[in-house]
Amino acid sequence: MTTPRALIAALVAALLTLPAHADGPYRNPDNKSVYDAGEGTYPVLYKKPTVAEITAALDRIRGYMEATTPTRVVHKDSGVQITDFSKPVADAVVEPSSAEWGIQVYEMGVVHAGLLKAAAVTGDKKFTAMTARHFQFMADRLPYFKAQEQQFHLQRANSFARVLDPRSLDDAGSMCAAMIRAKFAKVGPDMGQFIDVCSNWVYKKQFRLPDGTLARQRPQAVSLWADDMYMGVPALAEMGHLTGKREYYDDAVKNVLQMSGYLFNPQLGLYTHGWNANNPDAPRFYWGRANGWAVLTMSDLLDVLPKDHPGYPKVLAQLRVALRGIAELQSGTGLWHQMLDRNDSYLETSASAIFTYVIAHAVNEGWVSPATYGSIAQAGWVGLTTRINAKGQVDGTCVGTTFASDQIYYYNRPTSVDALHGYGPTLLAGAEMIRLLNNPKIDIQVRLRTYHYVPKDAGATNYSHE
Amino acid sequence: MTTPRALIAALVAALLTLPAHADGPYRNPDNKSVYDAGEGTYPVLYKKPTVAEITAALDRIRGYMEATTPTRVVHKDSGVQITDFSKPVADAVVEPSSAEWGIQVYEMGVVHAGLLKAAAVTGDKKFTAMTARHFQFMADRLPYFKAQEQQFHLQRANSFARVLDPRSLDDAGSMCAAMIRAKFAKVGPDMGQFIDVCSNWVYKKQFRLPDGTLARQRPQAVSLWADDMYMGVPALAEMGHLTGKREYYDDAVKNVLQMSGYLFNPQLGLYTHGWNANNPDAPRFYWGRANGWAVLTMSDLLDVLPKDHPGYPKVLAQLRVALRGIAELQSGTGLWHQMLDRNDSYLETSASAIFTYVIAHAVNEGWVSPATYGSIAQAGWVGLTTRINAKGQVDGTCVGTTFASDQIYYYNRPTSVDALHGYGPTLLAGAEMIRLLNNPKIDIQVRLRTYHYVPKDAGATNYSHE
Amino acid sequence: MTTPRALIAALVAALLTLPAHADGPYRNPDNKSVYDAGEGTYPVLYKKPTVAEITAALDRIRGYMEATTPTRVVHKDSGVQITDFSKPVADAVVEPSSAEWGIQVYEMGVVHAGLLKAAAVTGDKKFTAMTARHFQFMADRLPYFKAQEQQFHLQRANSFARVLDPRSLDDAGSMCAAMIRAKFAKVGPDMGQFIDVCSNWVYKKQFRLPDGTLARQRPQAVSLWADDMYMGVPALAEMGHLTGKREYYDDAVKNVLQMSGYLFNPQLGLYTHGWNANNPDAPRFYWGRANGWAVLTMSDLLDVLPKDHPGYPKVLAQLRVALRGIAELQSGTGLWHQMLDRNDSYLETSASAIFTYVIAHAVNEGWVSPATYGSIAQAGWVGLTTRINAKGQVDGTCVGTTFASDQIYYYNRPTSVDALHGYGPTLLAGAEMIRLLNNPKIDIQVRLRTYHYVPKDAGATNYSHE
Repeated sequence: MTTPRALIAALVAALLTLPAHADGPYRNPDNKSVYDAGEGTYPVLYKKPTVAEITAALDRIRGYMEATTPTRVVHKDSGVQITDFSKPVADAVVEPSSAEWGIQVYEMGVVHAGLLKAAAVTGDKKFTAMTARHFQFMADRLPYFKAQEQQFHLQRANSFARVLDPRSLDDAGSMCAAMIRAKFAKVGPDMGQFIDVCSNWVYKKQFRLPDGTLARQRPQAVSLWADDMYMGVPALAEMGHLTGKREYYDDAVKNVLQMSGYLFNPQLGLYTHGWNANNPDAPRFYWGRANGWAVLTMSDLLDVLPKDHPGYPKVLAQLRVALRGIAELQSGTGLWHQMLDRNDSYLETSASAIFTYVIAHAVNEGWVSPATYGSIAQAGWVGLTTRINAKGQVDGTCVGTTFASDQIYYYNRPTSVDALHGYGPTLLAGAEMIRLLNNPKIDIQVRLRTYHYVPKDAGATNYSHE
Repeated sequence: MTTPRALIAALVAALLTLPAHADGPYRNPDNKSVYDAGEGTYPVLYKKPTVAEITAALDRIRGYMEATTPTRVVHKDSGVQITDFSKPVADAVVEPSSAEWGIQVYEMGVVHAGLLKAAAVTGDKKFTAMTARHFQFMADRLPYFKAQEQQFHLQRANSFARVLDPRSLDDAGSMCAAMIRAKFAKVGPDMGQFIDVCSNWVYKKQFRLPDGTLARQRPQAVSLWADDMYMGVPALAEMGHLTGKREYYDDAVKNVLQMSGYLFNPQLGLYTHGWNANNPDAPRFYWGRANGWAVLTMSDLLDVLPKDHPGYPKVLAQLRVALRGIAELQSGTGLWHQMLDRNDSYLETSASAIFTYVIAHAVNEGWVSPATYGSIAQAGWVGLTTRINAKGQVDGTCVGTTFASDQIYYYNRPTSVDALHGYGPTLLAGAEMIRLLNNPKIDIQVRLRTYHYVPKDAGATNYSHE
Repeated sequence: MTTPRALIAALVAALLTLPAHADGPYRNPDNKSVYDAGEGTYPVLYKKPTVAEITAALDRIRGYMEATTPTRVVHKDSGVQITDFSKPVADAVVEPSSAEWGIQVYEMGVVHAGLLKAAAVTGDKKFTAMTARHFQFMADRLPYFKAQEQQFHLQRANSFARVLDPRSLDDAGSMCAAMIRAKFAKVGPDMGQFIDVCSNWVYKKQFRLPDGTLARQRPQAVSLWADDMYMGVPALAEMGHLTGKREYYDDAVKNVLQMSGYLFNPQLGLYTHGWNANNPDAPRFYWGRANGWAVLTMSDLLDVLPKDHPGYPKVLAQLRVALRGIAELQSGTGLWHQMLDRNDSYLETSASAIFTYVIAHAVNEGWVSPATYGSIAQAGWVGLTTRINAKGQVDGTCVGTTFASDQIYYYNRPTSVDALHGYGPTLLAGAEMIRLLNNPKIDIQVRLRTYHYVPKDAGATNYSHE
């Protein structure tokens, strides 16, 4: 029954659940008592991270992002740079990234969010240089690619197709939110014309259910994706933030609550990846990253939603139950599994990074208690550090994944350092961890070989009898 | 702490969860883009199966079954054939199968069901040749073994004991249902006298609870087995089908609903293996095959139960919740685990085959949506193909298993190619998959590296913005 | 991605889930049919244990405990024995154990409970010789260490600090209960002065919530620990037993029910390790040993609580639901996992031993049915035998563990033969298993390759048709 190939497959399967760059077992360096028999070893470097370490990791990622996102126009086949923008040519494209990612894709919107957060937390403007460069390029070259489209009708092959003619939430929402955030942060040029187009798509043009829930026509004719919470709601929320118009907030809140109604399993505290109108009681797939998008959405919304909005306590309550469900499934490495409820699926980076960010952020904002959640965020970061390599690449992220219907697909999605989905969340997670470590309201106690995030206003702890 | 033997044991344990004949990792051949970075590899051959492939697999199994089920009478010790049936001899037995299975056991009833289904779906009568041969032999030799019994009183040692003198549901129900189905399919001789005996046992003589639920006196004095849904109800249902008498349907429905009341855990959507009157709140054991029998029973009942029977919607509703619970526990190989809720128990063939059949059948009958369930059935078949070897053997099936009370027992049941329990279900699964692939109401879309079973009447999907 | 070190780490991780001393696979020796194809092999020695085997295991542990718990006073640095107790010296300490455990720690209270039970069950007084020796030493040397304290003010460095000046439930409750039990069993000298001090701490001095629940001021200012059920309630229960005063029973019952209200998850049937007032809806950690303390507490309380106490049926009902939840998570080796709901965490001895004891005891006391639970207890003992080595050491026990907030910590607690927490529970489990095997009300049937604990008063089982 066993063949050498099967043996190797079994070992590979076992290794898939280990952090990619881990060389463990590690000893906790915060325990200075090296002969302490009560201290074991860890598959990850269990310790309290320092601000300097996190900042260095963020900077490595930043550098890698800068180096892999050229903002030049080239001839498609030759790669020769185009500098004359007076008259469009049919084969002009944005120079491809060596990592094969676009500068206008939704994943890049999350990267901008992460860079903006990193700059805000560290005070170091170098973190937003890339955002400013990308946006300046987009603003500068919009007329050129618009002219190219008018003349050559390239449609989806036009490098600026997503911003000229968005056709899905993926095209519009994440970048829209990022551009508004950059405006508030005074990073980059005026992106107003972009914001108009993408917000209009999300608010007015995207296919919806009759009850107004943002929907898609695939993989079934009427489908919901948990991912679409993120692809739509933060843009609506930021439009409320930008314009002060209540209707955007109302739509954002409505979508969070209705999406949760369709997709959230309160027994487990998890979101299923999607829902089809033609199969409302379908078996569920608790895919990690989809849960990440759901909680990131609620976190982003609460960041700007007026506290007196009637939806505020509802969104906060929903975020809390989801974070509890997610936190309860963190693995013994600090990372989370590709399928959250399946500990024989691999440990996935992007979901782990989003969870680490949202949990740390929820602590910092006072949405959840530092007790328990502070340690969980720290453990998440400890796990994530095994996925950031010396080049600044973020490894172990599940590639782009459709809303599917079987576990063979979900379990076996490949991971790649080129999956951009992991970069923005890791930047967000690191930046928020710096805020957490610096949080003046929290006393981080290293006691009895573990960590306790103690709110300073909640009374004194007492270890006197030890 | 680690010894070489323990090391090997660990590796063996890890390998137990891999398909028996898998040589993976495999690449999905439906993705023609061989450099697609979004396409990984799989531990099983993830693809859309073809009718030709499935038919060939069914034919291999059929051939193996034919070759291993002699229908001759021999002297027990010498094995010399007996051809003179004018006068019984004490040592006359049905020639043993090289695979050690009997032609009148309940597992063979499922094999007949599978062969009848394969013939119906493929239109190829060769699939029912074995059923016709077995039944003809049984009809021809009944007088001989009856006379043997009258003269020698061999009791359970008589090769025809089960049909001459059934004493349990295992002896009676499955073969009874198979004989009635063969009659409707015009396969084999008139089996009326057999049907009378076995249906009478199920309907009138089997031990029951005071509320009429089919029960057993082991392992505790008053016990229920989920298996007994299958050992009793399909026979009752087919008797209703055969006679048109409502009372059989009523009893069948009552048993499904009452068994579910005792054994079904609605929180998990699973059946526990059994129940004892002296321990009604006992810890539960979600054994795979028992859940298989439960859903196969409901499926078989719905096949013949008049749609206007008041129990119809109740049985359908119960089947749906059970299928959802089961589907949610499918592994990343398409197979299911021996203990459904335990991903560290081995991947078991017979339960996986029953689930694959019932899910595909429920889709084809319109009991559940093709969306989600179509892909799950396909994944189940993909997993099963790793268990059908070149000789037509079905591997990886848990041997006969009693209703036990500890997990050491359940986890460590051996598997065997000689466990007949896997053969009938695999025939059923393959046959129903052919129906699914040919289902004119379903458009099977291969999109974005996975599969979508789209009902043709549910509106058009739209991938235009990709 | 895979390095040799990571490969080894994966193998080690896999091996961690195997019993420490297992050399399996084993064949069940109770099945005499050595060619039985329905009988597989086991990772543990699946069989019905014998009284002689268990007694021998208990005696090995007893011998190891005796040898590793000197009761002498020595000079701290030189180790030279002190025999003149007329005048205290500052450096006098109780001679340290080679296994680094104290004779007054709470874990030793459980050891005494196990030895008392072993003596009662076997009738062999040698099992309580150590208890008598320790208590005699404590009674003899109390004046000496009291005088040392008055003269030198050593505080926690005084070897008798816990009994002279208890400051926590850990210092007081377990030993208090053990001393009262020894008194009832007429083992050792009068320990009344010790009992007064420790019971007073539990009943009067320990920090509590406003509602009277026993609490701690760490790791957060107001915290509950499931462990504290055991650290407090058995002492209260035994004080009720000793004094007949209802108020002790009332407090014991109140604490069990209120602790369960805060910590028990009825959906899973498990206790979370702890609770903080500043994070009442925190993510939960189903640590094995904490669940062990919870059910051992209820078992100990029911042993002495008058049956007419209004709390009796409530405590019994709570014990039953907790035992069901725990039993349903027993692994395929008979042991339980460090995190009960996580089958990728290691198999932990102390929790497994407590569960085995409480389940067997609950069967023997008639609190739960022998059906199902008898086999589960037997399986638990089968697993435990792999953890008792030839020297009488109990291996695989998680070291002392604080109430923490992340899974990296819990998953990676080291195990040690020096973790005293495993010894008392294993003694209890073995002793109770002897009672179970000798239980005159139960017929232990070895049938169809497994075990059935059949209550003799519940009607006859019937295997006649096999």
